[in-house]
Amino acid sequence: MKTHTILFQPQNRTVAVEAGESLIRAAMEAGVHINASCGGEGVCGKCRVIIEKGEVAGGVSERLTPEDREKGYRLACRSSVTGDVTVRIPVESAIDASVLNIPPAPRRTARVKAFNLEELKDKGLFIPPMEKVFLALPEPSAQDHLPDVTRLVSFLTLQNDEHRLGVEFPVIRKLPDTLRQDRFRVTATLARPVREDGQSVIINVQAGDTTSRNYAVAVDIGTTTVYGQLIDLISGAVLAEQADFNGQISYGEDVISRIVFAEKGDGLNRLHDVVVETINKILRTIIKRAGIDRDGISSITLAGNTTMTQLFLKVNPRYIRRAPYVPAATIYPAIKAVNLDLDLPDHVTALVYPQVSSYVGGDIVAGVMGSGLYRTEELTLFMDIGTNAEIVVGNRDWLACAACSAGPAFEGGGIEFGMRAAKGAIEDFSIDPVTCEPMNLTIGNVRPKGICGSGLINIVAALFEAGVINNNGKFEQTLPTDRIRERDGVWEYVLVRQAETQIDRDVVLTEIDIENLIRAKGAIYSGCQTLLEEVGLTIQDLDRIYLAGGFGSYVDLERAMVIGLLPEMAADKITYIGNASLMGARMSAMTNRIRRDVVEVTRKMTNFELSETPSFMDHYVASLFLPHTDLHLFPMLKARLDARRAMAR
Amino acid sequence: MKTHTILFQPQNRTVAVEAGESLIRAAMEAGVHINASCGGEGVCGKCRVIIEKGEVAGGVSERLTPEDREKGYRLACRSSVTGDVTVRIPVESAIDASVLNIPPAPRRTARVKAFNLEELKDKGLFIPPMEKVFLALPEPSAQDHLPDVTRLVSFLTLQNDEHRLGVEFPVIRKLPDTLRQDRFRVTATLARPVREDGQSVIINVQAGDTTSRNYAVAVDIGTTTVYGQLIDLISGAVLAEQADFNGQISYGEDVISRIVFAEKGDGLNRLHDVVVETINKILRTIIKRAGIDRDGISSITLAGNTTMTQLFLKVNPRYIRRAPYVPAATIYPAIKAVNLDLDLPDHVTALVYPQVSSYVGGDIVAGVMGSGLYRTEELTLFMDIGTNAEIVVGNRDWLACAACSAGPAFEGGGIEFGMRAAKGAIEDFSIDPVTCEPMNLTIGNVRPKGICGSGLINIVAALFEAGVINNNGKFEQTLPTDRIRERDGVWEYVLVRQAETQIDRDVVLTEIDIENLIRAKGAIYSGCQTLLEEVGLTIQDLDRIYLAGGFGSYVDLERAMVIGLLPEMAADKITYIGNASLMGARMSAMTNRIRRDVVEVTRKMTNFELSETPSFMDHYVASLFLPHTDLHLFPMLKARLDARRAMAR
Repeated sequence: MKTHTILFQPQNRTVAVEAGESLIRAAMEAGVHINASCGGEGVCGKCRVIIEKGEVAGGVSERLTPEDREKGYRLACRSSVTGDVTVRIPVESAIDASVLNIPPAPRRTARVKAFNLEELKDKGLFIPPMEKVFLALPEPSAQDHLPDVTRLVSFLTLQNDEHRLGVEFPVIRKLPDTLRQDRFRVTATLARPVREDGQSVIINVQAGDTTSRNYAVAVDIGTTTVYGQLIDLISGAVLAEQADFNGQISYGEDVISRIVFAEKGDGLNRLHDVVVETINKILRTIIKRAGIDRDGISSITLAGNTTMTQLFLKVNPRYIRRAPYVPAATIYPAIKAVNLDLDLPDHVTALVYPQVSSYVGGDIVAGVMGSGLYRTEELTLFMDIGTNAEIVVGNRDWLACAACSAGPAFEGGGIEFGMRAAKGAIEDFSIDPVTCEPMNLTIGNVRPKGICGSGLINIVAALFEAGVINNNGKFEQTLPTDRIRERDGVWEYVLVRQAETQIDRDVVLTEIDIENLIRAKGAIYSGCQTLLEEVGLTIQDLDRIYLAGGFGSYVDLERAMVIGLLPEMAADKITYIGNASLMGARMSAMTNRIRRDVVEVTRKMTNFELSETPSFMDHYVASLFLPHTDLHLFPMLKARLDARRAMAR
Repeated sequence: MKTHTILFQPQNRTVAVEAGESLIRAAMEAGVHINASCGGEGVCGKCRVIIEKGEVAGGVSERLTPEDREKGYRLACRSSVTGDVTVRIPVESAIDASVLNIPPAPRRTARVKAFNLEELKDKGLFIPPMEKVFLALPEPSAQDHLPDVTRLVSFLTLQNDEHRLGVEFPVIRKLPDTLRQDRFRVTATLARPVREDGQSVIINVQAGDTTSRNYAVAVDIGTTTVYGQLIDLISGAVLAEQADFNGQISYGEDVISRIVFAEKGDGLNRLHDVVVETINKILRTIIKRAGIDRDGISSITLAGNTTMTQLFLKVNPRYIRRAPYVPAATIYPAIKAVNLDLDLPDHVTALVYPQVSSYVGGDIVAGVMGSGLYRTEELTLFMDIGTNAEIVVGNRDWLACAACSAGPAFEGGGIEFGMRAAKGAIEDFSIDPVTCEPMNLTIGNVRPKGICGSGLINIVAALFEAGVINNNGKFEQTLPTDRIRERDGVWEYVLVRQAETQIDRDVVLTEIDIENLIRAKGAIYSGCQTLLEEVGLTIQDLDRIYLAGGFGSYVDLERAMVIGLLPEMAADKITYIGNASLMGARMSAMTNRIRRDVVEVTRKMTNFELSETPSFMDHYVASLFLPHTDLHLFPMLKARLDARRAMAR
């Protein structure tokens, strides 16, 4: 897509954005504050800007008089970028001139690591677990009565120099008729062994030459969302993908409540059934959308956390939540998809990602595989942040992992106006440090109704950097604004006044909300510290961070460092790898090298139970500040804070 | 059971019989003819004998006057042996004195080969495919979070020096709860590999120590009858057995009509379902009768002919009956019993006997294993006689086999009064060579209504030896008896007159019946000749005959040689091995040695298609006589016939 350059005045700051972006988001990207209360819906009329040079589309509104429009005024939130443009923030809504010289916190989103199929091929990592072979068999005759299976196996052995071929029973059931559909010209699907001394097994036969139709499915079973991809095993391309909420949500938001439900009566069967129905719905969608022959699917690879995996497999998860927290298994054998009630052809093999422990599951192992962490020389921290945050540190030589119970703050839990990342959630925020007026941007650019997880981080970080809250997470009660107030003995900041919300109340951030966020980020940060300490290292030794999971994609890295969720590190050392679990599942679906390596990686991943590690509590307590008791762990932030304080004096 | 000695006069012939046997059956056994028309029901009153010494139970009848009784007359068919006794056949019902000196054809039933478990053990052949191992696992603790499967496998590996253990998925499903039922004391069932380099797999876990409860099931799926045995894998004992008619009978008597039915609409599913229901009924019966814990069953081994096997497995048998007669497979993989709809626990593995060709199936392979034919040095002929007769010749070095289409004569088909071996069927027969009066014995000792297969052989043999029919199978029309007569242009012998039957007609044997029998026995005999010729041998080279199948147990060997069904051989060289298919299934269920050997044996069994062997037709035509064109193949019979002819002159 085309990009255009926006110059903001009087800040004299430029930013390059894609065509169609709104001016207000361009300003946020540039670190330019514009007062804006209504989330971008255009109703508060506060985000008035003047187009000095160039043109924008839209931006006119009843909130602007004809004279204003004539003068070049536009509402920033309703203006779309169509070309290079110079924008002036008018005095009445601009920050005080004195702060113009303070460099803004650089806005940084993590570099997205693209899935590199060619690299996989180059490294000899593209060895499909399922291979299709076309065979033109000699037809039986009075002189040649070979049984059908014997004919198939002998010919295949001869043609491909195979040995020790197995044949699955359903293939025998199909074979007599399939052979005779196209004069003994058939395509056999061979499941290749993971171990070199293993046996190849014929899992399907199809009439004629169908070698060009060889597909696999990769699935990430998330506690909240299930993702599926249909993969072409010839090209490696993703032919279709689909996400849907995990049907288990109605039986509990988190893994613990799901386990509790599974323990009651027919609960386990019920939870199995609903997640299978979610997966089946996704399967039907991606098969239809890709327009492929369903019978061409050979395998499905699934990754999920330990609880999701056991519920999907109908393996009682009861002991996951009871000390000493023992999962049923690490490595699961290949299982026929139909035996798991998946709506796939009989021959399809389901491959389930192995687990490390009760709280470091297949999704994390898949992430370690998908990110390539297990092959790098650099000391890397892998984080998947959610209600349960999983962390892995290590490199190609060793791997240690742990799970932290962060609590639900990042998903809006325990936050008065917390909500999921949905329409109307404040996702981005800036504050005028002089007037304390906010700039709220919501998902969908509609009037706010709450705060999502990434929004919460952005708000707290901005308030902290602006000095509105101190490093204990308490409001600076003396600031000259009515947005900071006490209600029922609790101090809060009014983000949006009732009139500009979708709801019948002010949307606020309270000190209790901040405290919950600090606890959540403190658990994760101190988890990393503890894990590193257990292997004789410190946070400063880290070379790289991989950020995985849906949450990671929305988090502003800088802001996450400001609150002390992420260790401070140069932006190009942090890689956002998206749904690493799905990526790992896809890689396993495409190559047996990964399937072989994953067994070794799973064995190698040393699990630490933080609750049983004495130093964890010390680290945790020390991290219950913004960003941390020890500000030397965050030198760049410290420099900025020092600069601002010097200015303010 | 106690045996007693019966002396028959004036023949001066003794026989030892079990207490309770009837005098008339003792006479038949001794080769002593007593006129008897009514099959043994006591209504014709012809079988009057005088008890000269000793006592019998019963035998008094309205047919005897008080004076007769006083003189010691009894009806032989109603008299039970209770002690040693001397019996005189009165002149009016005895054969002419001149024939008393002709030695009767010795009555010989084949020596039954008992299943020898100790021999199996001695030879190292008792290696159960399913082994149970008790484990007292250490319980998990804060210092030991091993996943349940890992705990089980590591401990088992250590305790038993196992390596490369597999774990079936259903075991993982059961494991968490099973481990905690009895403080981590569990019994694992291991499926041992057939190949030495194979992998042992854990297929079940049970709480506590259940090692003493390890069972298997062996099943013979016959076209007519299904047999099942429940086996204790610790002792090798058969705990219960049961037979039942194959539910498929209502869809066709023979394999061809079953295949025809299977080809129509839902026929294959229907035939699968009904035979499975038959097996399930047997399973329920034997499990209940043995009073065992159903969960202690580890495996079920099944043997059947190729069509029965494919129908049971729901593998389309269509191509079995179409040239070039190709079966689906020889060796079938192990299949979970539940996947075949068998009413057994989820973990039970079904092992299906391999097939050689479309008409030499798993029942015959099982027979070769069960009889030990594949381990003997002697040149052995194995025969399973039925509508389709299968023959195997060979020894431990080589094996050749073929199937002959004998037609349904042995099962009563194509015989005017032919019937299955059921109550009222004439099963044994003798004839007075002077008066041509018959001695008919029926199954159940009731009035005759037809002739069963073994009866047919006995009748034709007796008529031939007595000179009532010639070696073309035609009646001697000049004999002075009204029992030989012409009806609608066909000559026949009246076995039973209407008044003494259960039906409203005379029971007769026609020349057409004889012709059909000759064709049937000719196909089998010439099949043996052809098969031997193909491997460069002749009938005379045979050292031993194994006779298998239900039919074999009732056939009088001597009579079968008289008509030329069996090659002539000393009685102790012929072994009746009963249901060899069931015996083979049982052996496979008990020892992996047999399971390993059977793969090799199946490969070794060279199948000959008789219809494509040019010499078969010549041999067949030459065998369409009683016993054969070439009487030198039957030297003992020839000697007897020569002696009779000399007498008669």
